[in-house]
Amino acid sequence: MLLADPLAHGEAFAAALAAAVPDVAMVRWPDEAADRPYDVLAAWQLPPDFPPLPESLVLVFCFGAGADHLLADRRIPARVPIVRLIDDGQAAELADYACHAAFSFLLDDQNYRIDQARRVWDPVFAQRRTRAETRVAVLGLGPIGRAAATALAAAGVKGRAWSRALRQIAGVETFDGPEGLADCAGGAHVLVNLLPLAPETAGVLSAAMLARLAPGAYLVNLGRGGHLDEAALRDALDAGQIGCAFLDAFAEEPLPQAHWMWSHPRIRLTPHIGGLPTPTGAARSLAAAIDALRTGAPLPGLVRAAATAPP
Amino acid sequence: MLLADPLAHGEAFAAALAAAVPDVAMVRWPDEAADRPYDVLAAWQLPPDFPPLPESLVLVFCFGAGADHLLADRRIPARVPIVRLIDDGQAAELADYACHAAFSFLLDDQNYRIDQARRVWDPVFAQRRTRAETRVAVLGLGPIGRAAATALAAAGVKGRAWSRALRQIAGVETFDGPEGLADCAGGAHVLVNLLPLAPETAGVLSAAMLARLAPGAYLVNLGRGGHLDEAALRDALDAGQIGCAFLDAFAEEPLPQAHWMWSHPRIRLTPHIGGLPTPTGAARSLAAAIDALRTGAPLPGLVRAAATAPP
Repeated sequence: MLLADPLAHGEAFAAALAAAVPDVAMVRWPDEAADRPYDVLAAWQLPPDFPPLPESLVLVFCFGAGADHLLADRRIPARVPIVRLIDDGQAAELADYACHAAFSFLLDDQNYRIDQARRVWDPVFAQRRTRAETRVAVLGLGPIGRAAATALAAAGVKGRAWSRALRQIAGVETFDGPEGLADCAGGAHVLVNLLPLAPETAGVLSAAMLARLAPGAYLVNLGRGGHLDEAALRDALDAGQIGCAFLDAFAEEPLPQAHWMWSHPRIRLTPHIGGLPTPTGAARSLAAAIDALRTGAPLPGLVRAAATAPP
Repeated sequence: MLLADPLAHGEAFAAALAAAVPDVAMVRWPDEAADRPYDVLAAWQLPPDFPPLPESLVLVFCFGAGADHLLADRRIPARVPIVRLIDDGQAAELADYACHAAFSFLLDDQNYRIDQARRVWDPVFAQRRTRAETRVAVLGLGPIGRAAATALAAAGVKGRAWSRALRQIAGVETFDGPEGLADCAGGAHVLVNLLPLAPETAGVLSAAMLARLAPGAYLVNLGRGGHLDEAALRDALDAGQIGCAFLDAFAEEPLPQAHWMWSHPRIRLTPHIGGLPTPTGAARSLAAAIDALRTGAPLPGLVRAAATAPP
């Protein structure tokens, strides 16, 4: 197996993986050369100079929850299935991020931060919104979206969630389909995007979507930069329609130094740290994929099946 | 009854109070003159120019959770008992604030904010702390401390709490007494102060206390400015012992324009908005005090009983 992601080079992950699949030989690229054939490739994305994939390759494991980079990579032959990470620890981190943003909204955090920067003492005596009055909408109900919606419901906010096909979650009102998407977001105080990036979800955080939220809503993009219309966000921020945007994913990463989002007073950005693979969770997920490969069981986290006919 | 607090002048509060005690005549000072005797005074603190208290006064209701200003006010005769607000809505707001700070810690929020201000993209790949690994200590277990400790436990962090006399809370490890205080704070990642201000709690957030916390801990002062040794905090922030201080209460309010805390990169301050009396909760609490006064039942929220002998 070739491990081609810096997050897969840590000692804790190596130890957990060695314990789970002790008979698998690991090569850590680029620290070690990829000069022998391998069966499994674990990576989040392949740099342009990545060595040609060997004929022996039978599985690509996406070392992240979103496999959009690998799905778009034409170097991976259609005969090779792609599976993705399923990591409870990572899902919990993203749920923490969503809760963090929701509690920030409850505290009217961004307005008070702007006041602090200007040394303005201006307590707002209007009645604050309670948790039960605060509508938080989650887009995407894969394992991560489910973890976030469940954590938000446990925190006591009024949770809603949308997925392409209808799913049920205790304590959360769920929606599906294109019309359900508009209903789910309508009047939301906090919108959390956890969708995978795909042609049908690109640009979902559009001007029309932002306009559907409650005035002053918080937007939380934990998906991909490609989900967000940046110009629409800027307009919505400057018009007060969006009170704060928490952004963890960007069209170009690292975010270019000159980008306007770094310094907008209503943007809170983090360098794609919302949900990192955890050593034990990632090792468990990768070991489960290898086990399934060996036994012929259905591959967990399958995002693209092997093409049955030659391309 | 004289209502001498701007928060008690709102329409929602007036309507809720009128519904609860329809036969009580209300005067809103200073908009209305305090020129007739009254029985009950509702206030959070009395300004220096407050009109002399009438002989008819039989109860002072503190329009806030902390009655330290009224307890120290020598204009209130010893024969008049002082009770304080008990407001579930206010307690929930302060619990929200505590949760907000705890989730900020989980996200390593302040370090990333400092990075953002410098346009630095530096994801930290070290394994993050999970909720279950995060120790949050709450000081004070009155109704508000209990609400905060309970909300934090529901959010899944490792909760601890201290009070003068031992109390039990489901899912929270509780401590009492002077030695228990040190044990409760020892190694905490987040310390939330919700103590009342009294001679024995003044300065409790001392250099020694801050040194007991885990390195990089977050301090959350929702009590009073008098609880905090500001010089000790500054030293601990600059030494990295405190990663961020969330401050909602100050020795002088509004915080003076020139104060160093406004602009310290690791201080997050809010203008004493953590827990405002809510219209329905405050009306219910005040009506309960009036009912007890009329029936001779024990006064709820009693913080100073009437002196039985002349002073």
